[in-house]
Amino acid sequence: MKTCAIVGASGYTGRELLACLPHHPRLRATVVMTARSGQQPEPPAFPGEPTIDALDLARLSTVDGVFLCTPHGAASEIAAAALAVGKKVVDLSADFRLRDPALYQRTYGSAHPAPALLARAVYGLTEHARSAVRNAELVANPGCYPTSILLPLLPLLQQGRLDAHAPIVADSKSGVSGAGKAPSDRVHFGAVHENFLAYGVGDHRHTPEIHQQAGTSRIVFTPHLLPAFRGMLSTIYVTPAAGQSAATLRSCLAEAYAHEPFVRIYAQGQPELRCVQRTNQCHVAVTQSGPLVVLTSAIDNLQKGAAGQALQNMNLMLGLPEGDGLS
Amino acid sequence: MKTCAIVGASGYTGRELLACLPHHPRLRATVVMTARSGQQPEPPAFPGEPTIDALDLARLSTVDGVFLCTPHGAASEIAAAALAVGKKVVDLSADFRLRDPALYQRTYGSAHPAPALLARAVYGLTEHARSAVRNAELVANPGCYPTSILLPLLPLLQQGRLDAHAPIVADSKSGVSGAGKAPSDRVHFGAVHENFLAYGVGDHRHTPEIHQQAGTSRIVFTPHLLPAFRGMLSTIYVTPAAGQSAATLRSCLAEAYAHEPFVRIYAQGQPELRCVQRTNQCHVAVTQSGPLVVLTSAIDNLQKGAAGQALQNMNLMLGLPEGDGLS
Amino acid sequence: MKTCAIVGASGYTGRELLACLPHHPRLRATVVMTARSGQQPEPPAFPGEPTIDALDLARLSTVDGVFLCTPHGAASEIAAAALAVGKKVVDLSADFRLRDPALYQRTYGSAHPAPALLARAVYGLTEHARSAVRNAELVANPGCYPTSILLPLLPLLQQGRLDAHAPIVADSKSGVSGAGKAPSDRVHFGAVHENFLAYGVGDHRHTPEIHQQAGTSRIVFTPHLLPAFRGMLSTIYVTPAAGQSAATLRSCLAEAYAHEPFVRIYAQGQPELRCVQRTNQCHVAVTQSGPLVVLTSAIDNLQKGAAGQALQNMNLMLGLPEGDGLS
Amino acid sequence: MKTCAIVGASGYTGRELLACLPHHPRLRATVVMTARSGQQPEPPAFPGEPTIDALDLARLSTVDGVFLCTPHGAASEIAAAALAVGKKVVDLSADFRLRDPALYQRTYGSAHPAPALLARAVYGLTEHARSAVRNAELVANPGCYPTSILLPLLPLLQQGRLDAHAPIVADSKSGVSGAGKAPSDRVHFGAVHENFLAYGVGDHRHTPEIHQQAGTSRIVFTPHLLPAFRGMLSTIYVTPAAGQSAATLRSCLAEAYAHEPFVRIYAQGQPELRCVQRTNQCHVAVTQSGPLVVLTSAIDNLQKGAAGQALQNMNLMLGLPEGDGLS
Repeated sequence: MKTCAIVGASGYTGRELLACLPHHPRLRATVVMTARSGQQPEPPAFPGEPTIDALDLARLSTVDGVFLCTPHGAASEIAAAALAVGKKVVDLSADFRLRDPALYQRTYGSAHPAPALLARAVYGLTEHARSAVRNAELVANPGCYPTSILLPLLPLLQQGRLDAHAPIVADSKSGVSGAGKAPSDRVHFGAVHENFLAYGVGDHRHTPEIHQQAGTSRIVFTPHLLPAFRGMLSTIYVTPAAGQSAATLRSCLAEAYAHEPFVRIYAQGQPELRCVQRTNQCHVAVTQSGPLVVLTSAIDNLQKGAAGQALQNMNLMLGLPEGDGLS
Repeated sequence: MKTCAIVGASGYTGRELLACLPHHPRLRATVVMTARSGQQPEPPAFPGEPTIDALDLARLSTVDGVFLCTPHGAASEIAAAALAVGKKVVDLSADFRLRDPALYQRTYGSAHPAPALLARAVYGLTEHARSAVRNAELVANPGCYPTSILLPLLPLLQQGRLDAHAPIVADSKSGVSGAGKAPSDRVHFGAVHENFLAYGVGDHRHTPEIHQQAGTSRIVFTPHLLPAFRGMLSTIYVTPAAGQSAATLRSCLAEAYAHEPFVRIYAQGQPELRCVQRTNQCHVAVTQSGPLVVLTSAIDNLQKGAAGQALQNMNLMLGLPEGDGLS
Repeated sequence: MKTCAIVGASGYTGRELLACLPHHPRLRATVVMTARSGQQPEPPAFPGEPTIDALDLARLSTVDGVFLCTPHGAASEIAAAALAVGKKVVDLSADFRLRDPALYQRTYGSAHPAPALLARAVYGLTEHARSAVRNAELVANPGCYPTSILLPLLPLLQQGRLDAHAPIVADSKSGVSGAGKAPSDRVHFGAVHENFLAYGVGDHRHTPEIHQQAGTSRIVFTPHLLPAFRGMLSTIYVTPAAGQSAATLRSCLAEAYAHEPFVRIYAQGQPELRCVQRTNQCHVAVTQSGPLVVLTSAIDNLQKGAAGQALQNMNLMLGLPEGDGLS
Repeated sequence: MKTCAIVGASGYTGRELLACLPHHPRLRATVVMTARSGQQPEPPAFPGEPTIDALDLARLSTVDGVFLCTPHGAASEIAAAALAVGKKVVDLSADFRLRDPALYQRTYGSAHPAPALLARAVYGLTEHARSAVRNAELVANPGCYPTSILLPLLPLLQQGRLDAHAPIVADSKSGVSGAGKAPSDRVHFGAVHENFLAYGVGDHRHTPEIHQQAGTSRIVFTPHLLPAFRGMLSTIYVTPAAGQSAATLRSCLAEAYAHEPFVRIYAQGQPELRCVQRTNQCHVAVTQSGPLVVLTSAIDNLQKGAAGQALQNMNLMLGLPEGDGLS
């Protein structure tokens, strides 16, 4: 039995990890802490829930792996402390996703807090980085939007199945849990329920991450906020290369993911949020629509888009079966 | 004081009209009937609601204008009866939206029930057909998706502001009321709440209507079903022509709609469903995003997307102020 | 044409008033201000919405009536200022609902800010205080829970139709808008959506108000929070006096409210939130259930439970038709 | 490893069982069938879901236990067939809950389809029938409303802690999944979302079941429909016997359920739906409110109110650990 720490356990991704781990046969959360040292310990949200202790970096030495569910900026220092005592770290924040510290600064508005660590981080889109993750000491867990967009796109881009010049449109819709647990006007029930909107049009922070991983800046990304709690659907419009069609793109993806337990390419029908909620699955349909091909990609933003993929990565880093704890 | 009939008053669009008319200073609903002759009259849904009488074509001769809120296919016969007695007709169904009866048959799966009437119908996207509507005897009220897409696109297409060869992506999201009031697995609370999906990808019935009115088949349209009751947001991705940008496209739209009370072009910010719900407004933002420009367009699918625009058209046809009854 | 000021216009009840007044033929909001002097003016929430000015007590002298949509505690000073210049005041906060300043202190945790004004305030449950409201200078607008409970109960209590010793259970359920617009953990979408709970069991602040107005402390009141935005339903369990039954209680209520446009007693069926949302109506059903009679009472908490009833009262105070501006 | 059949697997309770069983270490669903012989087999609802075969009674002989998730009336015949080949049966329908066939006929409107089996059925409110369930061949799984009401009430009634003459009010609120998966006007998204209502006031079918099990007809029960999918909260108002108070009633319940893993009595705070959703838990708070004591009781209607309790019962009947498969 291996052990892990969850730092920042009171947020949605931390809680999601806490909810997964009791089903894990070989990994136990023995350290459950807040994200910042000033923060008060938190009593159980309701009877039966765990208590969240105050942050204490010394306790990181007692576990095998560390999950960082902290806001961006706060993760770096804790990651450094954990790496210093030889622990495996999966960082769910944005701190290690961008390889270029200058790009980080432009995107997040402050200097990168630990640029020396950037070279040691592996970008953990598991299906596309499995062996690197297995040997990594520090994994940057992908953002939810990038995960939903890169999984269907990467094989097509890598195999030259898409027109090399045409823009790619990624129109994504996310449940509110993606905005985090802190109260605000934006996440007030009265502002979400029976509402819908695009936000960050043209300048969302996940765009540089998507461009970096896709190796192209031709992807035009627009996020939207759904009146739902969990789940994410990206509708992606691609221009097939000459000789390609929905059928050949679908075959390409079906083959690429044929042995992947967490990615499913539909032969027919469209994925819905409810197909993937509370699972680590990514479901993808490929459909011709006039001159373009439409890729619809559904994940649970708290699972494959955050805690689930983090656990998938930690399993690999600790030498455990990749799917443990992931139904 | 003018009078009107609402045929098919028990559906969502019929009820929406019934809810608008008490605020109308010059038009009163004196005939409120079901959509089909076999249908039972309906008692008030709850105390205070109107009774819906059985369909009786003879009563159409007693009013000035007729709203047809019937399923497609059922409207044609009633329209013919109303026209025969010289009444103004606004048809909210799809029966008169496509000019080509062969296209109607391919799209709706049955022969057009009244092809001889097609030439007499005016497509009532009011802001773009005002004088024709004023003189029309029969108006085909536009579909909700086409309305949300054509309003921001038409001025740009007409003025050659867009690349003439690039595809246009129209990614639309609609509240459930667009699917109508008939119970089904698809509209069960358990299938909509906390869910989201694309449907009709590549073959939705509104696509031919959009192509016909835009004068181009380069528009790739994908509808989605929101876990909300009313409202529609279309996110439209266009490639500007040489020399054009978000700023020039925004100016073009701002000028085109400068004097339109029901269309608002944002100088900044993004429209949300709650900006337009229960209004006849269309709100549009124009934002650069990499090589493309993103048009976000919000309407209430039951108002500007159906009953509101129908009332706007009927007002014109009856010589009443266009905004009467529309807050 | 009369004029009014709305103080605290950015909250839900202030906005509801702002949404009603354009439909009012004889009253216009000419002063629209924030609730506290320190507060910044607020730009329109989205294009088309009004700007909210900073609080300026001097402007109260320019209007005929003043609506106070402020938090409790903040209303008293503004009320005093408005009364001093001879203006009619409807206070939607709790400041003048309890006649006894000691009870106010026990309930709200601080000394009453203006006890001298208490004697001048009329409790404005309109249907039961019409002539007093007409002559009032200061009206304490009832709380939403008390309104939904007192309307069905008062005629039964006043006519001795209920057992004089048995407890009365008032089990109430409210939409989230009742909790106000300020962000908090409690009103986060993630805490409301797909959730439900009782709160304030045994000690909610509306209990003393209900007891005072009903003239009895036998009413056991429990509020609950619905995963909905607007609307309130109270399920009230009463023990009929000897010789009384559901039928006689229903007749009593039907007669008491026979000429009231805003109260409807059902002959059959049950009221639902959607019967009363966006109206100033209170709908009531009376049903036998074993030894008890169940009164179900539905209102819109923002209308009859707040802004609607406030407007009803202001209309009376200004000598306008009571229903003006209330559809 | 034991095996079971799920009959009626396409409904909400059948699907809930299907979702639980993969987590069960000792029980596997080897037969998954529709509820009625005429019914078509159902393909997977979406990729990864199980296929549901057509009903075939002969296959019941191949398993150890049979879950009946059929509509009332349809269960009896299948139960008889399963009992005839010596199988353990848990019936989630209402067929065996009422001991008196005449009462069944009055309540469900048709003669009981298998009165001879009634004497063999054990009412499976597990915590109160554990040893009988262990030896039963046929268990009538309790209704969701009765479960949420009886768990907090039974110890109080059995120990004489309540006034023997005062009525008990049980005001219950249920998510929509309780109404089943069949489409209807009542469960249309447009009729549930942003709505709330009482139904079956004075005559709901669960009332006789509650009265029978509580041994008293003093319980006045009112169900309500929440705009939520899963979860149930009952607010129960009791009159303590002389010398009793909220504190003593709470102690009584805490002691009665001290060793029960699926019932939790709160020392403070109020249960919310989200505390129990997707668990087999019943959470109960006990609070003084004037002369009455308020019991708030939360369960997941699909788990402890249906499939979870059914699995708890089946585990006992098959000699497996009671909590297997129930997180």
